[in-house]
Amino acid sequence: MTVGHLVAGIDVGGTKTRAVAMDAEALIVGDVRSSTDAAGGEAVVASTFRVLTDLAELVGIAPGAFEVVGLGIPGVVNAELGTVRHAVNLGVDGHPVAVGPLLSAAAGVPVVVENDVNAAALAALALAAPAGTEDLIYLNVGTGIAAGVVLRGRVWRGRRGLAGEIGHVVVDSNGPRCRCGQRGCLEAVASGATITRRWPAAGGRRAAVALFAAAAAGDRDAIAVRDEVIGHLARAVELLAFTLDVDCIVVGGGLADVGRPLLLALRAAVTRTGREASLVEVFDLPARVHLAPAGAPLGAIGAALAARRRALLSAERAEVG
Amino acid sequence: MTVGHLVAGIDVGGTKTRAVAMDAEALIVGDVRSSTDAAGGEAVVASTFRVLTDLAELVGIAPGAFEVVGLGIPGVVNAELGTVRHAVNLGVDGHPVAVGPLLSAAAGVPVVVENDVNAAALAALALAAPAGTEDLIYLNVGTGIAAGVVLRGRVWRGRRGLAGEIGHVVVDSNGPRCRCGQRGCLEAVASGATITRRWPAAGGRRAAVALFAAAAAGDRDAIAVRDEVIGHLARAVELLAFTLDVDCIVVGGGLADVGRPLLLALRAAVTRTGREASLVEVFDLPARVHLAPAGAPLGAIGAALAARRRALLSAERAEVG
Repeated sequence: MTVGHLVAGIDVGGTKTRAVAMDAEALIVGDVRSSTDAAGGEAVVASTFRVLTDLAELVGIAPGAFEVVGLGIPGVVNAELGTVRHAVNLGVDGHPVAVGPLLSAAAGVPVVVENDVNAAALAALALAAPAGTEDLIYLNVGTGIAAGVVLRGRVWRGRRGLAGEIGHVVVDSNGPRCRCGQRGCLEAVASGATITRRWPAAGGRRAAVALFAAAAAGDRDAIAVRDEVIGHLARAVELLAFTLDVDCIVVGGGLADVGRPLLLALRAAVTRTGREASLVEVFDLPARVHLAPAGAPLGAIGAALAARRRALLSAERAEVG
Repeated sequence: MTVGHLVAGIDVGGTKTRAVAMDAEALIVGDVRSSTDAAGGEAVVASTFRVLTDLAELVGIAPGAFEVVGLGIPGVVNAELGTVRHAVNLGVDGHPVAVGPLLSAAAGVPVVVENDVNAAALAALALAAPAGTEDLIYLNVGTGIAAGVVLRGRVWRGRRGLAGEIGHVVVDSNGPRCRCGQRGCLEAVASGATITRRWPAAGGRRAAVALFAAAAAGDRDAIAVRDEVIGHLARAVELLAFTLDVDCIVVGGGLADVGRPLLLALRAAVTRTGREASLVEVFDLPARVHLAPAGAPLGAIGAALAARRRALLSAERAEVG
């Protein structure tokens, strides 16, 4: 067994943590999940270490035998230092928590930290983009909304690791109050949380899936809510596309569970704009919009890809030095 | 005279063309302007060649003695081929016009073509950004609105040269009809053309300057228009900042003639948002907003900088090869 070439990718969410083991051919050879202990930095590190241990046990190695571990985590990440802050759903405030060094010390393995949406964007590039794509924006529509920007095949983090945090751009100044205090943030009008509030699903079905099904069946209220949400997401796709003119925009997150009806609705919404505005036509936006593959743990896979890449870079530097 | 090291930078506008000659120390040693013949591709090339000839005469050389000529032009530019299309104000439609090769043949000098706002963004990096800045967005608010994106010191053009074309992102779906056909495009609610329509200035004074003066003097209508325009521009600054998390956002174009009152109003508008949204605070947006230097011909200077850089790269490649 090529134990030395296994990397782990861990996606720490507000309620669940998912981890995959990836071999040298980028195949997933192990996959575990567990609940997150979101009571602040130490608790998060401890529950992450437990998941890593479970994963290691599953693939038959010690946690320290992974070549490198990638950790995808919400909040503002300093990838150089391996710290995170402003991860509200994990109980982490503005003070940086050294999740990377702490997990590394506990497990005896190098740890690479990446923002969870940025990690998912790397996975989207590998799994959802047309071959040859180098520039991509991953738009994550889950409880919140954020984007991951990949340029020339690498994550663009920005000056303070905040690139892609578009969830609180105001898109409707008369819209509902957002938890951040503003009115009509993108997140307040088009996130999974908004859909759940406006279309509470019964019987364990996901709200967005239920909404799209009801709209397809002709329910007028459902059609109105769906079209409003899609309209806002189409504007978000446009602003990202117009700012960076990237090849490919992949929509993922909980909303992507809706599948093809979501993709068709989004493509139609950006097409309408394309028909009306001449310069906008050149963008050919519909052809650039894609959906994340259903069910794939993008965050965990992307964390593993980020870790492998960083390990390769370090190895190259070591050879040069 | 170090004739061999002079480069020319030309900024072709819908009504005027401006050209500067720049020496090896990036000092402007010549500056001419003329009206643009905007009746399609050939007319534009002919009037651009006349301006280049005037500039050459001014600095005492033949047009062909410039080391390289940089051409900043509105529309969708293919920098590789030196072509432009969709430059509505120049009478250029969707068919590419080879402005670079045509001007090069006429003048007997290499010509580098860059979108005008992208060129201005390079000049903004050199003239308006804090020392050490590598990543910058230049937001041009003139008759229209567009942005130039500079990452790691280089223009980010995107897949089809469309990066930064945010003028037709819808920011107010109930807003006025835009010339593009949509309602409430950024350009329809916050451009110079919009200000001129809503606050027609008398006596040759610029509309935006008159508007800000009237607002400062307490005119309620002026305050309302000013605050609405500034609000929309603040949202544009936010969406650009949140997407790329760049160090520096420079506002230029005709609106920048307003000067310090514009800068203060914009900083206050993004500050308000910062106070309300915790994650947004981390951006420290007000500190990132700057104004283009008054009166500097950013487009022409940027075109010269783009030309010089391309010439240096070619020289390096030639040496390596």
